[in-house]
Amino acid sequence: MKIGRVLTKNGKIVFCAQKDDGRICEFDPEKKAVGTEIDIERLLAPVMPTKIVAVGLNYRDHAKEFNLKIPEEPLLFLKPQTSVIGPNEDIVYPKGVAQLDYEAELGIVISKKCRSVSPEKVSDYILGYTCFNDVTARDLQAKDGQWTRAKSFDTFAPIGPWIVTDIENPGSLKITSSLNGQIKQSSNTSNMIFDVFTIVSFVSQIMTLEAHDVIATGTPPGVGPMQPGDTITISIEKIGELTNKVVRR
Amino acid sequence: MKIGRVLTKNGKIVFCAQKDDGRICEFDPEKKAVGTEIDIERLLAPVMPTKIVAVGLNYRDHAKEFNLKIPEEPLLFLKPQTSVIGPNEDIVYPKGVAQLDYEAELGIVISKKCRSVSPEKVSDYILGYTCFNDVTARDLQAKDGQWTRAKSFDTFAPIGPWIVTDIENPGSLKITSSLNGQIKQSSNTSNMIFDVFTIVSFVSQIMTLEAHDVIATGTPPGVGPMQPGDTITISIEKIGELTNKVVRR
Repeated sequence: MKIGRVLTKNGKIVFCAQKDDGRICEFDPEKKAVGTEIDIERLLAPVMPTKIVAVGLNYRDHAKEFNLKIPEEPLLFLKPQTSVIGPNEDIVYPKGVAQLDYEAELGIVISKKCRSVSPEKVSDYILGYTCFNDVTARDLQAKDGQWTRAKSFDTFAPIGPWIVTDIENPGSLKITSSLNGQIKQSSNTSNMIFDVFTIVSFVSQIMTLEAHDVIATGTPPGVGPMQPGDTITISIEKIGELTNKVVRR
Repeated sequence: MKIGRVLTKNGKIVFCAQKDDGRICEFDPEKKAVGTEIDIERLLAPVMPTKIVAVGLNYRDHAKEFNLKIPEEPLLFLKPQTSVIGPNEDIVYPKGVAQLDYEAELGIVISKKCRSVSPEKVSDYILGYTCFNDVTARDLQAKDGQWTRAKSFDTFAPIGPWIVTDIENPGSLKITSSLNGQIKQSSNTSNMIFDVFTIVSFVSQIMTLEAHDVIATGTPPGVGPMQPGDTITISIEKIGELTNKVVRR
């Protein structure tokens, strides 16, 4: 099933499900009940997380690219809720930033509150998977040492378009990014150093996860800069395509 | 005025104000209206922020202590909402952590949504000030390089007990921490490298601030370890005392 959020023609923000025939219907994420078809104005980010936990350096091929040591444990950082945008919303190129990079990532969406979950039990707490673009001000990342500022500007967390609930093996999905239609990153989630279940379990030992929290699982090789006017698309097999344009404001 | 949140005897969580005579009354933070006296079960963290933005290395005397270069810009990190606890709640010493440190900090509480605020306009968006303990797993901070894991465990952000709204000069307040009654940190907010107004303006250029978001402004010299059974008190002149006990669970 594909779950998302929309702005309706009536100006309401509601959860919805996309049926196999493409129709978009009301959806109750608690009861998992699909309702009647809705008139949509536009798709929004499929959830509004209380927090986004992201993993750095989680692809073997990406670590190799930068000649970096394979980490022994997942290396975490946070992105604020205010950085979230949905499909087709604009990524704003901030004033004072010299290099703005895309990073294609598989996003995990948590279904319900949990803490200290073993890897074997993690699937009980996953609502589904989505596309995530970990937009990064590369120059500020290097300057600060700490990654927070570089990763936390408004619009730096495009998510969507849908949360796909029936992914049997999240550890075997093609993942790409394309800049203006040209493929820049092309890998497979099988290249992850820490798999989805290890990551969620690890994070849940540190902090309570809430319903709709998002965990971004790291990016494969080929990250690079975007310019104002560029269009960036993150594409993940069985999940979908997340497209955003870069603008200056 | 002192603003907080309480669990009432009826099991409700409500905002409240403490009057000069010590009585605790209902309070509407939107209308700034004080209501009738309430029967409280216990004080909670005075707000539940959508995000906590914290500043590293912001006291001249602390930078000197560790022989660190004075930063040119505020160095930011985030703590998740799930790390928040209130006065007299327990700080949990996590399994696998070797050194758990206290850090006394002045906390700024935002009053309403804002973005790109100039330092001169910042006071229009400050609800008040509170005590903050930036609890840190010092060994993991050094191990990871990124500070996020070390700062993000559940219970690592004690806040409170009250938000004090009528602080004329937040740049001239005595700040101390005491471990089991013995003073460990003793400084003044006048030793901050970046003042309150500069910090809020800087953060607001990066990310939209929401009502009740908390900004922690860095810690003075004297940080050190806590052990299970210890009691830690953060005390700030004109603001109050925030006390928490350390436990293993």
